[in-house]
Amino acid sequence: MQFTTQLSADGVTERHFRLGEVPGVLWSPAAASGPRPLILIGHGGSQHKTAPSVLGRARRFVTAGGFAAAAIDAPGHGDRPKTAADEEFIASIRARMAAGEPVADVLDGHHAALAEQVVPEWRAVLDALLAAGAGGPVGYWGVSLGSMTGIPLAGGEPRIKAAVFGLAGGPALAHAASRLTIPVEFLLQWDDELVPRDRGLALFGAFGSAQKTLHANPGRHREVPAFELDSSVRFFVRHLTGPD
Amino acid sequence: MQFTTQLSADGVTERHFRLGEVPGVLWSPAAASGPRPLILIGHGGSQHKTAPSVLGRARRFVTAGGFAAAAIDAPGHGDRPKTAADEEFIASIRARMAAGEPVADVLDGHHAALAEQVVPEWRAVLDALLAAGAGGPVGYWGVSLGSMTGIPLAGGEPRIKAAVFGLAGGPALAHAASRLTIPVEFLLQWDDELVPRDRGLALFGAFGSAQKTLHANPGRHREVPAFELDSSVRFFVRHLTGPD
Repeated sequence: MQFTTQLSADGVTERHFRLGEVPGVLWSPAAASGPRPLILIGHGGSQHKTAPSVLGRARRFVTAGGFAAAAIDAPGHGDRPKTAADEEFIASIRARMAAGEPVADVLDGHHAALAEQVVPEWRAVLDALLAAGAGGPVGYWGVSLGSMTGIPLAGGEPRIKAAVFGLAGGPALAHAASRLTIPVEFLLQWDDELVPRDRGLALFGAFGSAQKTLHANPGRHREVPAFELDSSVRFFVRHLTGPD
Repeated sequence: MQFTTQLSADGVTERHFRLGEVPGVLWSPAAASGPRPLILIGHGGSQHKTAPSVLGRARRFVTAGGFAAAAIDAPGHGDRPKTAADEEFIASIRARMAAGEPVADVLDGHHAALAEQVVPEWRAVLDALLAAGAGGPVGYWGVSLGSMTGIPLAGGEPRIKAAVFGLAGGPALAHAASRLTIPVEFLLQWDDELVPRDRGLALFGAFGSAQKTLHANPGRHREVPAFELDSSVRFFVRHLTGPD
């Protein structure tokens, strides 16, 4: 793992890194050192490792929770090249949405294929980050594409001790979810135009975890209320930090 | 409104009162005075104003939120006499549950009738408490029977600014819920043996409020996780206290 640039602002140090072809970012408190809980952030479809929502979340995990946080670009996202198939997929999704056609099945198929690539990438990055002393217990935060990749990742990754998922559904994911036993907080948008409500509810039901909480709010796919980020911080504090 | 006994313990002052035939309790911080947000707590079926869960919740609202809290006994509960019809109802519910028969419709009918009595009682108590200087903005916390009474109460009571409801459902309640516009946090137990899941989800969907959040957790009717109380406190802090 090669760290490239580093900058600090408002109490947060941001270090960019590269592991093979995977670019990523590690955020940590500027004024503290030593191992601390590490939150992996899986970005959504069409987003990337420093998209505004990812950045805002990472900074909040650092400043409000005292955690470290990390994000990587999924294949075809951010600094990674798009293939002809990626471009075709994007064009076809846009055309369907413009025509008011449902996109859930097409999205699911594409995201499931992406997840197969991202899972081993996350594992390698996690190995390298922990070897570099970045973290103690590990959490995962990712909705939409971030759940399509994060749920299979967490299912085969015992170092991940708690996760926030959401804005996702479908039978393939439900199968992966049934293997999980870690605490899960699950976000659902009641009027999600991309994920039918019943699919989201069924995915929440499928998690094998004894401790799981569904947080449903009105609004569309990208309208998760800001107060849910506070709830995510408290969730990780509850599950990743000691009784002190 | 006549205050009868008063005792203070662990930072909380508990004052019992009576308004006509309605007995109640007002909790407030022992070390502070002056108006503060007031949380009305509606107890569940077969519970009463100082049932352990009501008491624990009231103390938490006072100690963690700096709020005042109040509870009253519903007719046929706590210190209030049970009628022959109440006794018959209790016996019939027990027999149905023992036989594994569904109780939702029977409970709904009985609780709806109770709610018609409790709503004007709560209004009179709220008038008297505010006249006695007990509170600023008002919140309501009540699940199960506490929602059967609280939802119609909040619908016609503009002084109630935010409410936590849950563990309830049914078409009559859904109609009352559609009139609400205040922020609502709604608790649902995924494996509720008294309220079918679809009824709870439909009731959440029916609230007219733009700001409403569903918190669903695994487990039966009486197994709401303890961390939801922390969430209720934060919800009321968010909606009943100023930006300071």
